[in-house]
Amino acid sequence: MPKISTRGHIMPESPIRKLVPYSEKAKERGINVYHLNIGQPDISTPQVALDAVKNNTVEILSYSRSEGSEEYRKKIAGYYKQHNIHVSSDEILVTTGASEALRFMLSSITNPGDEIIIPEPFYANYIGFSTSNSVKIIPVLSNIDDNFALPDISDFEKLITPKTKAILICNPANPTGYLYSKEEIHTLVKIVKKHDLFLISDEVYREFVYDDEKHYSILSDEFNLGDNAILLDSVSKRYSMCGARIGYLVSRNKDVLKTVLKFSQTRLSPPTYAQIASEAALETPQLFFDNVISEFQERRNTLITELQKIKGVKVSRPKGAFYCVVELPIDDSDKFAQYLLEEFSDDNETIMVAPASGFYSTKGLGKNQIRIAYVLKKEDLIRSVQLLKLALTKYNQQ
Amino acid sequence: MPKISTRGHIMPESPIRKLVPYSEKAKERGINVYHLNIGQPDISTPQVALDAVKNNTVEILSYSRSEGSEEYRKKIAGYYKQHNIHVSSDEILVTTGASEALRFMLSSITNPGDEIIIPEPFYANYIGFSTSNSVKIIPVLSNIDDNFALPDISDFEKLITPKTKAILICNPANPTGYLYSKEEIHTLVKIVKKHDLFLISDEVYREFVYDDEKHYSILSDEFNLGDNAILLDSVSKRYSMCGARIGYLVSRNKDVLKTVLKFSQTRLSPPTYAQIASEAALETPQLFFDNVISEFQERRNTLITELQKIKGVKVSRPKGAFYCVVELPIDDSDKFAQYLLEEFSDDNETIMVAPASGFYSTKGLGKNQIRIAYVLKKEDLIRSVQLLKLALTKYNQQ
Repeated sequence: MPKISTRGHIMPESPIRKLVPYSEKAKERGINVYHLNIGQPDISTPQVALDAVKNNTVEILSYSRSEGSEEYRKKIAGYYKQHNIHVSSDEILVTTGASEALRFMLSSITNPGDEIIIPEPFYANYIGFSTSNSVKIIPVLSNIDDNFALPDISDFEKLITPKTKAILICNPANPTGYLYSKEEIHTLVKIVKKHDLFLISDEVYREFVYDDEKHYSILSDEFNLGDNAILLDSVSKRYSMCGARIGYLVSRNKDVLKTVLKFSQTRLSPPTYAQIASEAALETPQLFFDNVISEFQERRNTLITELQKIKGVKVSRPKGAFYCVVELPIDDSDKFAQYLLEEFSDDNETIMVAPASGFYSTKGLGKNQIRIAYVLKKEDLIRSVQLLKLALTKYNQQ
Repeated sequence: MPKISTRGHIMPESPIRKLVPYSEKAKERGINVYHLNIGQPDISTPQVALDAVKNNTVEILSYSRSEGSEEYRKKIAGYYKQHNIHVSSDEILVTTGASEALRFMLSSITNPGDEIIIPEPFYANYIGFSTSNSVKIIPVLSNIDDNFALPDISDFEKLITPKTKAILICNPANPTGYLYSKEEIHTLVKIVKKHDLFLISDEVYREFVYDDEKHYSILSDEFNLGDNAILLDSVSKRYSMCGARIGYLVSRNKDVLKTVLKFSQTRLSPPTYAQIASEAALETPQLFFDNVISEFQERRNTLITELQKIKGVKVSRPKGAFYCVVELPIDDSDKFAQYLLEEFSDDNETIMVAPASGFYSTKGLGKNQIRIAYVLKKEDLIRSVQLLKLALTKYNQQ
């Protein structure tokens, strides 16, 4: 029997999705599972986007342009302009989700064996994208006690080698909810300019910022980053349309754009119906976002307050996105997450969480941490934390 | 300025799409361009698929399962059963187009530097997928004078090295229209079993078979291929829904399925609206296919008959798909294709073709060949060949 590849072997399972078979079995046993494991908001997609698809007039569902239609990209440029980012439609490529943008971008800027520095913990799928591109992630540790702030500049500089191609951040961050300050972005800009690296910023949660804080994009005029900057974005979270699979890559670097377009051509085009929905979603009224942000801010407050009541539990205070990393008094969060689905239940209910080890590339880290996505209603979050507390007691009594 | 990667540099532009800027300029000059360059049929998508999307009841456009829904995969298994392929829903992974299936499959079975043997000429994007996976294509030449039949078994065997991981065929073939015989598939099965290789078959044109010939899938019961076989498929051509971006990977090899699923998890899920359309498309009445096949068969006959009237033009007789490779009395088909869009016109009309050099990986081959997609109505094909004839005369008089 012919063998699969080394990269196939070392490819990690998604820590967010690998427990799905256990949750399905729990559901078969009649257990109600609260999904804290996945960043799938329960917010209704804007009506304007849903209606555009229902009222579409497509008769031949054809390929679109590999880079997305000119009209759609012009509208996206308009969206960025409102956010102090001045780019032309030529500097935007529409992709099949930010995940595809990330994959094509890595293929375009790295060769097998090259290195990317990423503050750790980081979005688990960065490991998958790096593995499929045979690229090595060099983690730089951020800490729950510092609320996962950007590590010291010297921590970055000592990791830079001739193989380093880029620094990658997620802002606001998945899984930590950390929002980078203006000064931190300035620090990163200084490093990448000095060492001639790319600064890649995954800004898919850019709208999800709380406590009246401000989001600083690496493409904001004030950083004047030019050719070094690559921005990744997505409609998934912004408009609660994860199932569309539409993202963007934005850069002022002509070589990057030209190269990513070549990779984009191999997959012909992004999905057509999803582009219809996404283009219409740009017309979403501001009230939608105001409501969503205030809802998530309240959810965050509720979750943090409830978690802090549990003895031995440590939680950071996220300033953005809709995740937080929680440190638990346990030995192994993978085992605990499985226990929650296989053995624990209270009044026929349990919770599903993402073990945090999958968000670290340094072996052994995150083993007493989980990621919680606060994508559920407040009452469900309160019940979820109650279930967590009960489960912790029972688990540690085993 | 940080540099792009070697693989980014060597990544080819799509020979099918790279001329798009020239065709757009021609259109701006008021020229009517007949698109023979791209496999985008002019057939209306089945009403049942269009209606399913118009009548969808989605309120939160959520992620779906990474492998596609159980229900949809069961229906796909039912489709294959009707075609003498017995697979379970667990042996099917839904992907974002066959292109994604191909990309994930290559990542799963190859390491950088590994080799894949492909009969040449082949679908141009195979070069792109191989480049992005740092895999080397080893071409084995098929010939227009043999109608692009499978090369001799010894031609394959002399190319097999310890780095060879698979033989990849497209059946019926893009760009040649070649349909592999039962004996040819048997030959390939023998080679891959003897040398412990994968046999990958891109069968996205499986329905497009003419002259009452029969299509033999590598997964048909009679070949009993088991763990060595990987089938790639797509809804794009079958239901004239190229813009959906839904494909499948089908295999009985559990390691391949498990590994491809890990790559699939990194991109979360295939597009949701497209899955609604594709699942509904399985209910398309047989009459739709009968009409489509008879229409394409007539188009092929018309095209071949008209082309054969031009002196110095050689054309193979495709038995499937909707492409043919045409040898022209010219020096350089890239130049000629550009000439067609930039300089030539007759009564304000011209044609757009795909230069065949992009379908060969052996340097210098295909320079006097083009690929024609016969995706237009008969009268348009007749006019297109007339334009080709006029253009050839003028081009060679320059």
